[in-house]
Amino acid sequence: MFRWVKGVRSFSSAASSLLADATTAAKLRQPASFQVFRDVPPLRQLRRKLLKNDRTVGFVPTMGALHEGHISLIRQAARENTDIFVSIFVNPTQFGVNEDLSSYPRTWDSDVEKLEALNEELARVEAETGSGAKAGRITAIFAPTSKVMYPTLPPSSEIDGDGSFVTITPLSTKLEGGSRPVFFRGVATVCMKLFNATTPDRVYFGQKDVQQTVVIKRMVQDFHIGTEVRIVNTTREPTGLALSSRNVYLGERRRAVGLTIYRALKAAEEAYLAGKTSRADILGAARSVTDTVLAEQHALSKTERSLFEVDYISLADPDSLEELDFVDAAKGGVLSAALKMAPLEETKPGEDCGLGDGKVPVRLIDNLILHPKA
Amino acid sequence: MFRWVKGVRSFSSAASSLLADATTAAKLRQPASFQVFRDVPPLRQLRRKLLKNDRTVGFVPTMGALHEGHISLIRQAARENTDIFVSIFVNPTQFGVNEDLSSYPRTWDSDVEKLEALNEELARVEAETGSGAKAGRITAIFAPTSKVMYPTLPPSSEIDGDGSFVTITPLSTKLEGGSRPVFFRGVATVCMKLFNATTPDRVYFGQKDVQQTVVIKRMVQDFHIGTEVRIVNTTREPTGLALSSRNVYLGERRRAVGLTIYRALKAAEEAYLAGKTSRADILGAARSVTDTVLAEQHALSKTERSLFEVDYISLADPDSLEELDFVDAAKGGVLSAALKMAPLEETKPGEDCGLGDGKVPVRLIDNLILHPKA
Repeated sequence: MFRWVKGVRSFSSAASSLLADATTAAKLRQPASFQVFRDVPPLRQLRRKLLKNDRTVGFVPTMGALHEGHISLIRQAARENTDIFVSIFVNPTQFGVNEDLSSYPRTWDSDVEKLEALNEELARVEAETGSGAKAGRITAIFAPTSKVMYPTLPPSSEIDGDGSFVTITPLSTKLEGGSRPVFFRGVATVCMKLFNATTPDRVYFGQKDVQQTVVIKRMVQDFHIGTEVRIVNTTREPTGLALSSRNVYLGERRRAVGLTIYRALKAAEEAYLAGKTSRADILGAARSVTDTVLAEQHALSKTERSLFEVDYISLADPDSLEELDFVDAAKGGVLSAALKMAPLEETKPGEDCGLGDGKVPVRLIDNLILHPKA
Repeated sequence: MFRWVKGVRSFSSAASSLLADATTAAKLRQPASFQVFRDVPPLRQLRRKLLKNDRTVGFVPTMGALHEGHISLIRQAARENTDIFVSIFVNPTQFGVNEDLSSYPRTWDSDVEKLEALNEELARVEAETGSGAKAGRITAIFAPTSKVMYPTLPPSSEIDGDGSFVTITPLSTKLEGGSRPVFFRGVATVCMKLFNATTPDRVYFGQKDVQQTVVIKRMVQDFHIGTEVRIVNTTREPTGLALSSRNVYLGERRRAVGLTIYRALKAAEEAYLAGKTSRADILGAARSVTDTVLAEQHALSKTERSLFEVDYISLADPDSLEELDFVDAAKGGVLSAALKMAPLEETKPGEDCGLGDGKVPVRLIDNLILHPKA
């Protein structure tokens, strides 16, 4: 649930981001159907009360800017718990020094509205279906300041910066971690803090960020964290494009071509399902899709085409994320990819170019699990 | 409570230490008055039951080889909790590659006897003093294997080794961390695991290992661990020498000279209490003691003297452990020192030279808190 909109220029320093914390604090709208917590002790008090009453807590960590992907996590949590805690915190330590923490969207009011609407829907559905189908409710939003989350030292984005961190290696250095060395250290660190603050029975993460799910599962296992990690299927548009906060920057043309990432992974999955086990055969099927599309696009004019770069296409072990030469059918694997959608070179009058007018480079990621074969 | 007997040659590799785990597992004597847990899930079950019954858990982490210092922690825990969990686990990740994990004493049977005796004493004291003085009891011993504590990757002692770690910098690089770069990473990592496995209301550490207390307090604060860190005064011999597992290696002659560390710190403390605030004045008082003793020893013959080296004498901030030029009387400070007691050069017939016949170099550490002045 920790996603980052890449490619937007950074406007401000960490100092002004802490200011943003304070501004947000002042104007936080208080919702009706759940409590908002800005610090840990009162949240812990509520948690203890719930525990005494045999209620269960599902926890959904977010950085706000909620979309249907987040909502699907909460719906899943509502099916499995009496109470849902949602955190909204834009975590500075997972942004690298050259990444755009300050431009990450902060959309408190609309986030709260979405959560209130969801709570109403959960109540309505429960009432309509009768006593058979109990649904949990969002009970608490945890929206801490940076100072609450990083109480002693300023949160460092430097890989050799000082602080209190959880590091999970070599997992964190693979795939997405290759280009973003502090990212999974930041995610693991903030999740450890959030898990300790909320002590949930279950935590919910989206399959979309597969490496994040692997890192968090590893952290829970290695540190004996008393919670269950639940992974929720990627929410997709009808075309198959995985939902992402950054899709708003795509526009129509790049949205169509961006689907290539899904089509390439599907082709690789089909090769596996058809009995192929070698890296060459499985990833070759994916590469064939991306190569074909890229050739087609290059043949088009600048007002028609959308160029992209394949950052990586990976076939990896589901636990270690080590690259595989062959898939062990008893264990399966993880297919994942990242595509960099270049800015549009020339736009047409009236064209839907998305937020930022097609000028924002967008990095898309997606993955499919190759399930073990019986 | 994580102490390490230094200077004994290392006999075996990490592999044979894992074997030691297994051997211990096979012959674990089952005590009468508490349960022994070798894995996390059943311990968690007990913890949950205690929580439901409004009982409180005090946790005392140890590496076994229990002495009066550990017992004083448990006594304190018994005054403040209904139930006490004691862990016995020799943690590989806090031993450097050249340190002697394999020679760390493993004394399961005598440890269990001591804990049983203590439980009997706690019951007796409670019975004698009537209902006014409730005392907690040791309910559980957690004695995990290395595989339970490090389930996915072999525990690495390399500073750049792979694994799941908690790092607390720059705190961990100060004082003791200077000469032992992986030590506090290992301590923080294993404590995070142990705290998660036991979810105690309170954890108990000895003042003796002052840097450890500062690192653990910082970890609990930064990661929002829901426990209270209780620091218990250093247990001392009547002379003032701080109790330590490694004192058994000293023998009579080195025991007398080893007291210098305490006398030096006391001299520095007196300077502070007399109104001195500068590093030069406070540490000068300590240095004057060590210099005098060292000169006296050098003047003696090899059969009479005990030589030593001052590793460091430090005057530091109580939260950051940064060295101080001046003590802010409103905040106080930490005086700490390490002394390396050299092997005896020549021994006399019938002399009490301690375990290892005076040949084992012994590193002593000690500290005093300079309390803030009103």
